[in-house]
Amino acid sequence: MKRIPIVANVLEYNQSVAHDVRRAMGSHMLALNLLSSPGAGKTTLIEQTAAALKGEIRLAVIEGDLATTLDADRVAAQGVPVVQINTDGSCHLEARQVMAALPQLRLDHVDVLIIENVGNLICPTEFDLGEDAKVVVTSLTEGDDKPLKYPGAFVAAQAIVVNKIDLEPYLPVSTQELRTAIATINRHAPVIALSCTTGAGFDVWLDWIREALRAKRAKM
Amino acid sequence: MKRIPIVANVLEYNQSVAHDVRRAMGSHMLALNLLSSPGAGKTTLIEQTAAALKGEIRLAVIEGDLATTLDADRVAAQGVPVVQINTDGSCHLEARQVMAALPQLRLDHVDVLIIENVGNLICPTEFDLGEDAKVVVTSLTEGDDKPLKYPGAFVAAQAIVVNKIDLEPYLPVSTQELRTAIATINRHAPVIALSCTTGAGFDVWLDWIREALRAKRAKM
Repeated sequence: MKRIPIVANVLEYNQSVAHDVRRAMGSHMLALNLLSSPGAGKTTLIEQTAAALKGEIRLAVIEGDLATTLDADRVAAQGVPVVQINTDGSCHLEARQVMAALPQLRLDHVDVLIIENVGNLICPTEFDLGEDAKVVVTSLTEGDDKPLKYPGAFVAAQAIVVNKIDLEPYLPVSTQELRTAIATINRHAPVIALSCTTGAGFDVWLDWIREALRAKRAKM
Repeated sequence: MKRIPIVANVLEYNQSVAHDVRRAMGSHMLALNLLSSPGAGKTTLIEQTAAALKGEIRLAVIEGDLATTLDADRVAAQGVPVVQINTDGSCHLEARQVMAALPQLRLDHVDVLIIENVGNLICPTEFDLGEDAKVVVTSLTEGDDKPLKYPGAFVAAQAIVVNKIDLEPYLPVSTQELRTAIATINRHAPVIALSCTTGAGFDVWLDWIREALRAKRAKM
């Protein structure tokens, strides 16, 4: 009987492409994979990060979306090189898509590459994109039970941004309660509470990026 | 060469089980499949619906979650029969899971069954659970670009609940802008704007349920 070849494991294939992506990106550049629910504020975070780091750190962005170039348009308006990946209905980015996007960017002119994943707190978790760190963005408006209910993403995160803290006075949940919930799932990732509306806490986020870039390059 | 059987289409299989679920539920009962991002407020909507309809409409709930019984516990506290499905990491409910849950409920004592899907605006869209209507819950805090960016869920919805409208004064987006965005994707589904915190608009939601139940039974 003829042996039929089977791609046994989509994740295994993805992992091997992720290694190639990591090699292609090299050691001078920091790559972040941003995960969140729809509407947690990833794009706004990227817009404001680009504005704040202009002239200091050269950013590039890969935007993952089911459909539209709405997010890429917003980021491009900040003067940042951006590549849009439309997944055409698929619920997460895969390493092969990032690999295909890389030639669109002049990598030797990039210090930090931010990959904005599809808005989904579940499926992207399993797919290594060749990033140095996964960053989960959660917004205070989503409540304090999300770390327990969606543990995969929170466990995998190397940093957790809590966005929309300016709305705390109007919500039935506090930043402190959310911090406590996160700590039951992930004690190691720094939790960076901020508001993209008021700018509160934003410096802590920028310092985290600076330090992560420094640490990456120190390994060279 | 031996022919190797292949389950060609997971969705096809799901669809056939969904027909069985629909038959098992019968025509006296209305079944709603609630879809949303994590943290849009599905569970709170169910809690308050149960409280408001007590003594008028007999509710039962199936809770879909990656992990925990947090949501089921909240719903059970309202005195409503509830079955928890833990998907163990899977990103959506399937009809076979609903089928397995049905024997836990006394269906002849249920007027409306609410199925709370896993918090995910993408993957659950494709899976018919045997429901009469898909209801998308979106919160104003998620912004007005979600209908365009996650069109599948919004197209599939027979009703769209816009939650958290009490926060409108503090957000860069208005309920009217979100309504306009929804109308570009789905002109037919009623858009029910409400706040589970203040109760504003909640009567419109309750009336929608009453009318949907009446219409279902009128088809008998």
